[in-house]
Amino acid sequence: MKRNIFLLIFCGVLTLAWSQPNQQPTFVSPEVYPDGKVSFRLWAPKAMEVKLNAQFEKAPVTMAKDDKGVWSVTVGPVKPDMYPYAFNVDGIQIADPKNSAIFPNEGFQNSILEVTGNSPLVHTLKNVPHGTVSYRYYNSPALGIRPVVIYTPPGYEENPKKKYPVLYLLHGTTDTEETWTKVGRANIILDNLIAEGKAEPMIIVMPYGRAYPKISKSAGSLRNWDNLQEFKPDFFENLMPFVEKSYRTKNDKNSRAIAGFSGGGGTTLYFGLNNLDKFSYVCGFAPGMLENEFERNNEVAFANPEKTNKMLKLFWIGVGKEDGLYAVNQKYMEVLKQKNIKHETFISDGGHTWMNCKLYLSTIAQKLFK
Amino acid sequence: MKRNIFLLIFCGVLTLAWSQPNQQPTFVSPEVYPDGKVSFRLWAPKAMEVKLNAQFEKAPVTMAKDDKGVWSVTVGPVKPDMYPYAFNVDGIQIADPKNSAIFPNEGFQNSILEVTGNSPLVHTLKNVPHGTVSYRYYNSPALGIRPVVIYTPPGYEENPKKKYPVLYLLHGTTDTEETWTKVGRANIILDNLIAEGKAEPMIIVMPYGRAYPKISKSAGSLRNWDNLQEFKPDFFENLMPFVEKSYRTKNDKNSRAIAGFSGGGGTTLYFGLNNLDKFSYVCGFAPGMLENEFERNNEVAFANPEKTNKMLKLFWIGVGKEDGLYAVNQKYMEVLKQKNIKHETFISDGGHTWMNCKLYLSTIAQKLFK
Repeated sequence: MKRNIFLLIFCGVLTLAWSQPNQQPTFVSPEVYPDGKVSFRLWAPKAMEVKLNAQFEKAPVTMAKDDKGVWSVTVGPVKPDMYPYAFNVDGIQIADPKNSAIFPNEGFQNSILEVTGNSPLVHTLKNVPHGTVSYRYYNSPALGIRPVVIYTPPGYEENPKKKYPVLYLLHGTTDTEETWTKVGRANIILDNLIAEGKAEPMIIVMPYGRAYPKISKSAGSLRNWDNLQEFKPDFFENLMPFVEKSYRTKNDKNSRAIAGFSGGGGTTLYFGLNNLDKFSYVCGFAPGMLENEFERNNEVAFANPEKTNKMLKLFWIGVGKEDGLYAVNQKYMEVLKQKNIKHETFISDGGHTWMNCKLYLSTIAQKLFK
Repeated sequence: MKRNIFLLIFCGVLTLAWSQPNQQPTFVSPEVYPDGKVSFRLWAPKAMEVKLNAQFEKAPVTMAKDDKGVWSVTVGPVKPDMYPYAFNVDGIQIADPKNSAIFPNEGFQNSILEVTGNSPLVHTLKNVPHGTVSYRYYNSPALGIRPVVIYTPPGYEENPKKKYPVLYLLHGTTDTEETWTKVGRANIILDNLIAEGKAEPMIIVMPYGRAYPKISKSAGSLRNWDNLQEFKPDFFENLMPFVEKSYRTKNDKNSRAIAGFSGGGGTTLYFGLNNLDKFSYVCGFAPGMLENEFERNNEVAFANPEKTNKMLKLFWIGVGKEDGLYAVNQKYMEVLKQKNIKHETFISDGGHTWMNCKLYLSTIAQKLFK
């Protein structure tokens, strides 16, 4: 009895300050079953309508409420992968309060569902040697103290004289420096590919790409060009020197790659193709671009295609057939062909998603530094 | 015009899959003003009632809706600190979708507000040398691949022969391995105290304390004792050896401390006071405990108070006067007095909060390894 009273107090203490009503029943969400079906649950007794918005579904899925106020739905079987999802509660999109796997983003909140299936995928956490993901800060005179997430491969600590090539990996427009590890599983993908001998051990540098506070976080992609102009000096004058001072990096252009998704894909092409002396590998993942900016943004690479081809070991563009950026990427590839600029294209199924990001990263990681 | 159409498409692409209605107006939340007042905003056109639940307020604060469907309220001035907060939308508690600073937790979702004021606080990110926060994995035969977050102090990489003392720092019951850095700012607090010469450079080990999958994440604090029994072998047989193999640790008991908050505070006392050969510093932050478990959980320390006093360099308990655990902690301190077990107490204002956690950590960090 005393124990029960205490537990009541103890739980009360934890929730009191939050005014979280404590009549909430106990349940799990999401719940993945062995057959690949998944149940989602949300306690929302006063809501009129709750829907599941999941990236494995084409449309929102209606959920049903039980007599305790818990809305639920079971869907699937879901194809093994990691998917962002959210609940739409009377028009408001919220993350799943029962799921601590959160999509780091400055514009919306989503949770992450992982369905593994019967055999591990390239991004599945496995019992192989693991690299280290480090959260660091570097100084930018213009932008202040900036966060960056850095992956060092398995063995980095144990081989204190070995130097490594570096992949700079950029997130999408409203993402953060954590999105490539938490949603893109960049670290796990590399752990697995390195363990299988399919990728060279490399350092991956995942900076925060928003030029905040100069560019507001609420600007979304509307000020991508302005953001580029602010992020460019930060990247080349602050971030790269910090990385090369703090880590055992190989500092020649053949040991440097740059890749990025969406807005960060546009940044990748702009940084990479205008700095051919610094990067031999340039990879755009559904890169964000405007047709009327092709010439301006590719100035150096377009000026001398023959030299460009000589300077680049890999120029790679991946995009999904259902991606809203597919059309403009197709036009860009046409221009590259016209100009005789060598490039590899990778046309996948699906849209502008992090499922595709994982596919693109696991594809290019096997082509770098070889 | 072309640009506008593109931007529409581009934004549409990013939001389409989420069914996030794209008529959402542009705004910032939270917005901290120079006078310490703070505006909170949430777009929820269909909601009937939206309230702000913030840990600097005694009660929920009603928000008002404008003609675009954005609810807002301006409060304060707010005393400089970092506070968890959430919006209550028609009875459902949600994090702030515009704020990427999230409270890592398995039971609820909150956002973090930071109010700095005119002079930096002990947890304010400053231009001092920064340590590294590393996300690692270790193997547990019983529990699988386990995450742990590890802080190494400034200079760790540059002094490859130097060895460091270790603080094991445990989170509250439904928190995760990220809560001590993201909400408790353990890394920034140590960076600042080390820069001022007030704390010894140390390694901080922040493991994930839930014995998942053996103990369900939805069990909350109801199965704390069972969790302890599962987490104990993982901690001593897997985590500690991993840390001492992977980092340059000083491995004597005088170079080891253990501290923790709430459920993790209870774990701290249980692990620390029953393993006096391993830890010379034991610090509970509002430790979770039951009066009828005092004798069982403190068996070794209580068995020989004189030896206990000789073995411990610091036995410290901090708790807030408004904490629901204040009463049971008072009773525990009475028992310690009766048994002549030396201990330091620190009675603060406030309740069972992470504001107090930061205060407690910054207090004990100055007492360790000296």
